[in-house]
Amino acid sequence: MSFKKWSLIAAVMLTSVTLVACGSKSSKSSSSYTTTGSTSGTYQAVIKNGRYRTSKARGVAVQQNDNTYNLKSFESGLTNIIAKKFFSTKSYIFQEGQYLSTSTVTNWLGRKTSSNKTGLNPAKGSSSNPNPLYIQQIEEQDYLQQSGSSMKLKGVVIGIGVNSEYQYQKKTDGPYYTKSISKAKGEAEGKKAAAIILKRLRKKKTLKNVPIVIALYRQAGEDSLVGGTFFAYAKSNSSKISSWTSLNYKNVVLPKTSTSSSSSSSNTGTSGSFSNFKSQIQNFFPNISGVTAQTQYKDGTLQGMHITITTQFYSQTEINSFTNYIASAAKKYLPSGVPIDIVIKADTDVQAVVYRNSGSSKWLTHVFDSY
Amino acid sequence: MSFKKWSLIAAVMLTSVTLVACGSKSSKSSSSYTTTGSTSGTYQAVIKNGRYRTSKARGVAVQQNDNTYNLKSFESGLTNIIAKKFFSTKSYIFQEGQYLSTSTVTNWLGRKTSSNKTGLNPAKGSSSNPNPLYIQQIEEQDYLQQSGSSMKLKGVVIGIGVNSEYQYQKKTDGPYYTKSISKAKGEAEGKKAAAIILKRLRKKKTLKNVPIVIALYRQAGEDSLVGGTFFAYAKSNSSKISSWTSLNYKNVVLPKTSTSSSSSSSNTGTSGSFSNFKSQIQNFFPNISGVTAQTQYKDGTLQGMHITITTQFYSQTEINSFTNYIASAAKKYLPSGVPIDIVIKADTDVQAVVYRNSGSSKWLTHVFDSY
Repeated sequence: MSFKKWSLIAAVMLTSVTLVACGSKSSKSSSSYTTTGSTSGTYQAVIKNGRYRTSKARGVAVQQNDNTYNLKSFESGLTNIIAKKFFSTKSYIFQEGQYLSTSTVTNWLGRKTSSNKTGLNPAKGSSSNPNPLYIQQIEEQDYLQQSGSSMKLKGVVIGIGVNSEYQYQKKTDGPYYTKSISKAKGEAEGKKAAAIILKRLRKKKTLKNVPIVIALYRQAGEDSLVGGTFFAYAKSNSSKISSWTSLNYKNVVLPKTSTSSSSSSSNTGTSGSFSNFKSQIQNFFPNISGVTAQTQYKDGTLQGMHITITTQFYSQTEINSFTNYIASAAKKYLPSGVPIDIVIKADTDVQAVVYRNSGSSKWLTHVFDSY
Repeated sequence: MSFKKWSLIAAVMLTSVTLVACGSKSSKSSSSYTTTGSTSGTYQAVIKNGRYRTSKARGVAVQQNDNTYNLKSFESGLTNIIAKKFFSTKSYIFQEGQYLSTSTVTNWLGRKTSSNKTGLNPAKGSSSNPNPLYIQQIEEQDYLQQSGSSMKLKGVVIGIGVNSEYQYQKKTDGPYYTKSISKAKGEAEGKKAAAIILKRLRKKKTLKNVPIVIALYRQAGEDSLVGGTFFAYAKSNSSKISSWTSLNYKNVVLPKTSTSSSSSSSNTGTSGSFSNFKSQIQNFFPNISGVTAQTQYKDGTLQGMHITITTQFYSQTEINSFTNYIASAAKKYLPSGVPIDIVIKADTDVQAVVYRNSGSSKWLTHVFDSY
């Protein structure tokens, strides 16, 4: 593991942070770019005049999404699964999207109408059988490199979230109907939108020649307890996409409910480990603890787990003891070799976290305390 | 730092956990005691037949306390400040109090009346000028050592929480009045209660000869944003307390409000560090972040900080960037040599934690993510 490396990186980054402190007070020159610093395996991000460079389309995603799992999963996946394939965290600096504005993205996510010619979703059609909204979210991420006193754009990553279902009413206050959108249809609509978006981006002077990576994400349904997954990406240096690369990710919520559709053989190992872990924990207190997990697989191989344990605590000493117990049980029962975190909650308050980072075999614990 | 040591301890503990797994399924013998395992510097705790040995007075504290800061601070302090002085985490195993039951503690915390002769608080007196409730909470902790296949009680720690104020109504539905309880009066009442409790404990056969440590805690007022502090403790091997040792702890909330009573010179250094840290962070996003801290001093020396940062995030990438920035700023601005944790929240949800453990110089970060 790389705590040592992290300390080193952090130490190096502090130089930059010092520059912010001075720069933001004394001058507002155009070269007052600095970075956030970074922990191992994450990107530094751009700070300008002491302030984070927020996305030009800030807040659009928040407005558009009901299921917050989709939101976190889409943005994390775009960074960790897609961007890192092309722009290493060591050489590139992350910047929130600066070329697509709130109004642009809002218009693109709308339906194509006479008043919204850039809409990527089809006109509604008949209200009793409307065309689905296919394109649910669009995110831009910029990747830069330092060049003298300025930052140069070296690549853009665009994520497109495509719906797997569409909910609509036939009349106001009427019941809700749901249309499923097949994988094939979603993929076709996503690729169609990607081609249009790429052409539009190439019309912007700054984006004429930079590499643009576009990735397609299938949104999870509204009731899902886990987000969707990226299923294809393409890199282009022109205004056309010559070929797409497929991705085979799958998210599974544990324990599986009886209504879970498929019992994929690829994850019985994890499911079994989790089940042992869960039964070990549930009887720790007289009041039963809720234990659930989000798991992600790539080509049938486990990539990591987010586990949530909810129980009622009657004292801080119970929280301390439970956290130690979880750390022991995690080490004994949970799969090795992948990042896992376990959030320990009382009602909605996080009381402690037990986690093992990517590439590490050490379990770390932190209990939230108070003076 | 002792991650290596922790791994070792955890590995050793897993043997115990294995025993639980077998013991709880196949047998219910009286010797099926195991432990939770432990991370560095924390106690292992007792598990019996696969189940945590909860306190016999479980839940009493929860019922009695309005200010949850007092609750966490009292229980943590009793373990970390008092118990660890006498019972090292390496040699002793923690057990939630088994000798004081819910009804016993509830009665002791009540007023002394003809129907509650064991009440430690005075009779109410006149309703227009009632006697305060002095004794607010009582907690028992047991410390054991393994002896063959059984666990032997080696010591008991009792915490007594004494109020610093008393709120009352002169008539039902009337306005609330508050009486302050001076430090001297609180100390006298706490010591009086301690002497009575010790005598009562010595009447129990099992507690006749074990060392008993009693510690006194002054509760923070109801509106406080930090809990109270322990101010005295005594160890006794008999049924009398021969002498008390004073403790000089002080909790300070930062930033200081203009109504903060005293501007102690002892903590201007920390207050200044925190103020730099805070101003560095507050302008990171266009929307201002709230930054507050609980700090604790012993004899004027900083013991640690719990920092909470609340801001609005519009994306997971903002959370990632902010967390990296906090880690850099913490390293640059916050005092070294003491444990510090920084909880990063959006509304009430914890999004990330940045912390440095006791005895370590490494800052660790964990971002809560979702698939």
